[in-house]
Amino acid sequence: MQAKVLITLKNGVLDPQGEAVLHALDNLGFDDVDGVRVGKMIELDLSDTNADTARTRVEKMCEKLLANTVIEDYEVEIL
Amino acid sequence: MQAKVLITLKNGVLDPQGEAVLHALDNLGFDDVDGVRVGKMIELDLSDTNADTARTRVEKMCEKLLANTVIEDYEVEIL
Repeated sequence: MQAKVLITLKNGVLDPQGEAVLHALDNLGFDDVDGVRVGKMIELDLSDTNADTARTRVEKMCEKLLANTVIEDYEVEIL
Repeated sequence: MQAKVLITLKNGVLDPQGEAVLHALDNLGFDDVDGVRVGKMIELDLSDTNADTARTRVEKMCEKLLANTVIEDYEVEIL
């Protein structure tokens, strides 16, 4: 079973990497971009065969390691 | 209009960050994980109002800056 985790900075948290990408795009002539936020995507191969169990496990992984829940939100998708 | 870009390493390209996450998860007792791949997610706010134009623009941004197409694949989603 596969899981996809999307990790994004919470609203209001400064994203210097996104700002840098925005400026770089602007310098390349892509001036139709108003904002950029950069996040992470983590793909996991799981040996669980039950989707509910897998989701619970992955949420625990996010809380413990994958996301910094003070400044980041996460979204789990079981494929 | 918003666009979401998912950038992943191509199959066969070594992912040391994913390996590190796999070992860390294993050390925390998550031994049901068989593999981890880490990618990037980039959210863009665009002033384009046409979905097709926006997709073409974002694909150009990926080719020119956002992705390293030698080792990375990208996927564009217009929201």
